[in-house]
Amino acid sequence: MPNLRLALSQIDPWVGDLDRNSDEVVRWTKQAVEAGAQLVAFPEMALTGYPVEDLALRRSFVEASRGALVELAGRLVAEGLGEVPVVVGYLGRSEHASPRFNRPAGSPQNCAAVLHRGEVVTRFAKHHLPNYGVFDEFRWFVPGDQLPVVRVHGVDVALAICEDIWQDGGRVTAAREAEAGLLLVINGSPYERNKDDQRLELVRRRAAEAGCTLAYVNMVGGQDELVFDGDSIVVGADGEVLARSPQFEEHLLVLDLDLPAASSDHTDGLLLSDGLHLVRSELGGEPGPAPAGRLTAEVAPRLSDEAEIWAALVSGTRAYVEKNGFRSVLIGLSGGIDSALVASIAVDAIGAENVYCVSMPSRYSSEHSKGDAAELARRTGLHFRTVSIAPMFDAYLAATELTGLAEENLQSRLRGTLLMAISNQEGHIVLAPGNKSELAVGYSTLYGDSVGAFGPIKDVYKSLVFRLARWRNEEAERRGEVPPIPENTITKPPSAELRPDQKDSDSLPDYDLLDSVLARYIEGDEGRDAIVAAGFDPAVVDRVVRLVDTAEYKRRQYPPGPKVSVKNFGRDRRLPITNRWRRG
Amino acid sequence: MPNLRLALSQIDPWVGDLDRNSDEVVRWTKQAVEAGAQLVAFPEMALTGYPVEDLALRRSFVEASRGALVELAGRLVAEGLGEVPVVVGYLGRSEHASPRFNRPAGSPQNCAAVLHRGEVVTRFAKHHLPNYGVFDEFRWFVPGDQLPVVRVHGVDVALAICEDIWQDGGRVTAAREAEAGLLLVINGSPYERNKDDQRLELVRRRAAEAGCTLAYVNMVGGQDELVFDGDSIVVGADGEVLARSPQFEEHLLVLDLDLPAASSDHTDGLLLSDGLHLVRSELGGEPGPAPAGRLTAEVAPRLSDEAEIWAALVSGTRAYVEKNGFRSVLIGLSGGIDSALVASIAVDAIGAENVYCVSMPSRYSSEHSKGDAAELARRTGLHFRTVSIAPMFDAYLAATELTGLAEENLQSRLRGTLLMAISNQEGHIVLAPGNKSELAVGYSTLYGDSVGAFGPIKDVYKSLVFRLARWRNEEAERRGEVPPIPENTITKPPSAELRPDQKDSDSLPDYDLLDSVLARYIEGDEGRDAIVAAGFDPAVVDRVVRLVDTAEYKRRQYPPGPKVSVKNFGRDRRLPITNRWRRG
Repeated sequence: MPNLRLALSQIDPWVGDLDRNSDEVVRWTKQAVEAGAQLVAFPEMALTGYPVEDLALRRSFVEASRGALVELAGRLVAEGLGEVPVVVGYLGRSEHASPRFNRPAGSPQNCAAVLHRGEVVTRFAKHHLPNYGVFDEFRWFVPGDQLPVVRVHGVDVALAICEDIWQDGGRVTAAREAEAGLLLVINGSPYERNKDDQRLELVRRRAAEAGCTLAYVNMVGGQDELVFDGDSIVVGADGEVLARSPQFEEHLLVLDLDLPAASSDHTDGLLLSDGLHLVRSELGGEPGPAPAGRLTAEVAPRLSDEAEIWAALVSGTRAYVEKNGFRSVLIGLSGGIDSALVASIAVDAIGAENVYCVSMPSRYSSEHSKGDAAELARRTGLHFRTVSIAPMFDAYLAATELTGLAEENLQSRLRGTLLMAISNQEGHIVLAPGNKSELAVGYSTLYGDSVGAFGPIKDVYKSLVFRLARWRNEEAERRGEVPPIPENTITKPPSAELRPDQKDSDSLPDYDLLDSVLARYIEGDEGRDAIVAAGFDPAVVDRVVRLVDTAEYKRRQYPPGPKVSVKNFGRDRRLPITNRWRRG
Repeated sequence: MPNLRLALSQIDPWVGDLDRNSDEVVRWTKQAVEAGAQLVAFPEMALTGYPVEDLALRRSFVEASRGALVELAGRLVAEGLGEVPVVVGYLGRSEHASPRFNRPAGSPQNCAAVLHRGEVVTRFAKHHLPNYGVFDEFRWFVPGDQLPVVRVHGVDVALAICEDIWQDGGRVTAAREAEAGLLLVINGSPYERNKDDQRLELVRRRAAEAGCTLAYVNMVGGQDELVFDGDSIVVGADGEVLARSPQFEEHLLVLDLDLPAASSDHTDGLLLSDGLHLVRSELGGEPGPAPAGRLTAEVAPRLSDEAEIWAALVSGTRAYVEKNGFRSVLIGLSGGIDSALVASIAVDAIGAENVYCVSMPSRYSSEHSKGDAAELARRTGLHFRTVSIAPMFDAYLAATELTGLAEENLQSRLRGTLLMAISNQEGHIVLAPGNKSELAVGYSTLYGDSVGAFGPIKDVYKSLVFRLARWRNEEAERRGEVPPIPENTITKPPSAELRPDQKDSDSLPDYDLLDSVLARYIEGDEGRDAIVAAGFDPAVVDRVVRLVDTAEYKRRQYPPGPKVSVKNFGRDRRLPITNRWRRG
């Protein structure tokens, strides 16, 4: 069996920054070549970043992407990297009309190309387009109808893009028909809790279906609300895991694969399953035996559930801050667990020296709240100051009559206004502390605690907030560091402290109960009757369902945050604001 | 030729309110029957409202819609309306899997049914699904593959849904193949400036292609950012306009049509164009001659460009306030033209007695601003009060150092906070005054003037704001009423009045120039180079393009507003926030 030394470049592309992404492809290819790689692969749309959303509909951007691809092929040669074939995703366009989708020739496509010796050897477009959850690919793209197979060092390598293996048939079946020796899949597959397990099972199944080794390369980093966890994988046709990259880190996975010698004589244009046409390219290179310095396959260990979520929150927050051109963040610290957790995430993401916090007590703030906020600052070393909102509060109350909820919300909004004033004055980006349970039921103040450019825990239920806080402290102890979050912040009963002796439990069911109902209603899409049938108190379910349904506008105005669940409150859940359906 | 008396019910369904919508179908059917109608048609998804967005993915809602349809058939009989066939849109589901789209049996469909004598005589699903602009129908639905033809009073009536006639082929061609005597199309077609002209041209072309009379019924009202303008039309195969409903009003269009007697003997299941199968139903009814009291076709006059836009803004605002359960609105009146126009729209939408305004002067507010705001209140009779923000401003400045932009934004945010406090206290919904030019370039303050649940002019460029203000005043004069907007508000140079002697023109190009560049960049999707090539100053274009690209986050946080253009800043333009593409 010929040996092929394959390199999977698990990188973090930046949406829209073609120059930076091209530089990265060159830099990582150089490393791969230094490691002796004979074939190098980059993620889906690595050249443009992913997802580019409606930028795909801007012709000037499509042309810039196509131009950058050709330029990149030349640069690789100029850097002495022309001999290794490089598979890279980019934004392209169709040559032919797609009458099935009523789209003309020249419509955008989610493409990939193989670059070799200064040429674009082959180009192809994603065949299966996802159009659910966070994906709108029928809006942006038309599908491709080719199965590209490149022969490199005597091995036939079939190529596919992400969704091509999440749906049945298509390029997986076609790869078997084409007798490929390797199915190489490039991906922009966003993180979701436990998706690594799902993904491994999927690639195993598809490798078996394709009847060959399957190599899966994914991106890392964050793009708006999406987080990419990497987790690139190589499995044999028998399902054996040959190699696996770490989660949430840029990583070059290089390994030697023994692959069957290409023997197929299927000709170009052969019609395969699902309307796919075979397109062959011969890249040359002698089939070689396994080299003496054969690279041991590396199988990175998986993170624990909490560590994985924490890494997603940290990398999503870091990416959002950095890619939007900021260096520092500003957080209102109440002494409560939400803002404490957000501050800890920010410290891990960009360093305590870039985290600015302000305690903004009102007449209803307890002594322990002020103390707990200061204690967090002491433990982590972040910047901390205190500004009372009492004088502003008094000025409003003198100007107009405010009682009850209006008075409560006012305090929250005065804090939001103060945070934005400091942000404008000093240039930090504001992080919002809201958690998913609060947002779900509308227990937050528009223009108050919802102020901010990013909400690091907006997709984290309150019960998970507690779990993560405990986990982060324990993790610090394991590492021999000071636990960042004061114990009192974790153990005291949650309160918004907007009126005397207020507790969250005055207005909301116990968080464990609330979160169980929410998970069924939001992630599970179960109706009111189904949740009641599962044994929950009908009065609680009715109340929660009504609260969730009527809070849609508030959620819509909330900043984006890293998506960690099946359904967050971002692009994956699109409900009308004006909506009279109130029966679950 | 047999005569058929057709009724098109141009109604305003409420999303999610199945009971209310069913009541409306019964009520309008009764009127149609009283007028002697032999066939009654309601808009697309009239039973559920449109668009229901991700509610379509909630199984309990699909089942409720299906149940409501069956119940409606029974109610029509109970009300003595069972003899007239009623065509009504609803949310249904597929019987078979759609492997082409990887969707199982039971997937949601955008359906319509014919109800007759207590039965659901036929059901079918939209064939062409729009998935561009504001539409995401491949996300929600799977397509239908039938051409329903119902024979009623001796005429073969082919049925179609909205997009079915916006794309080539499909049910239009199939209707000709089936030798239909009438093509009846039910629609949820949102308003866009000048769309009535486009729509008329379209239905004329499709009538010619189908080779028969075409009847087009649309909805009116508003749903979140969408406005529906009605404009139901009947045209002959020769393109003659036989009848047309008024724009933006609920309306029952009843007319007698001479239609060819059905003679086709094509059988059920016949395969027509585009994979459509013929499904025939015989509803009975004798073919009759034109009745003695033949109804004269009514062709409602078209509104002028300004009147049409005004009606869209007024009906979009009214729908949003009412359908969200509010009765009154709150607006910050600066004395400037934007808030004056918004107040005038609100007065026309819900009456001056339900419009509450507050002038919130700061130390930089001019005397004329305060006077102009009061003058608008006097002219329209809306509720008016003045609350100075000076004490709150001083309290912030005493607490933390703020200069420049931070100080400017603070004033705007203090006003936003005051509006929300009054809103919470008194129960009015806040309207935001931002116009499209400002939002495009980010010339607004997050949590300041962007505060509100709805932005009536967020899709109106500043130059059009001026035009509409003048038009509204002239319209008042034509009607012998007091023009609502003070002349000085229209003629003085625009200013945010956040620092001494500030003018918009200090920071932005002249609005006519700005709006020309914006229209090309936003609506036209022209790149920077193309706009420069059209003769615009490269420095201006670069500046505008940069401002637009970097203001994405702010726009995302802005409240929804009635969509009047090809691209507003809502669901029809989805750009990444984190985006390094800055070359247009």
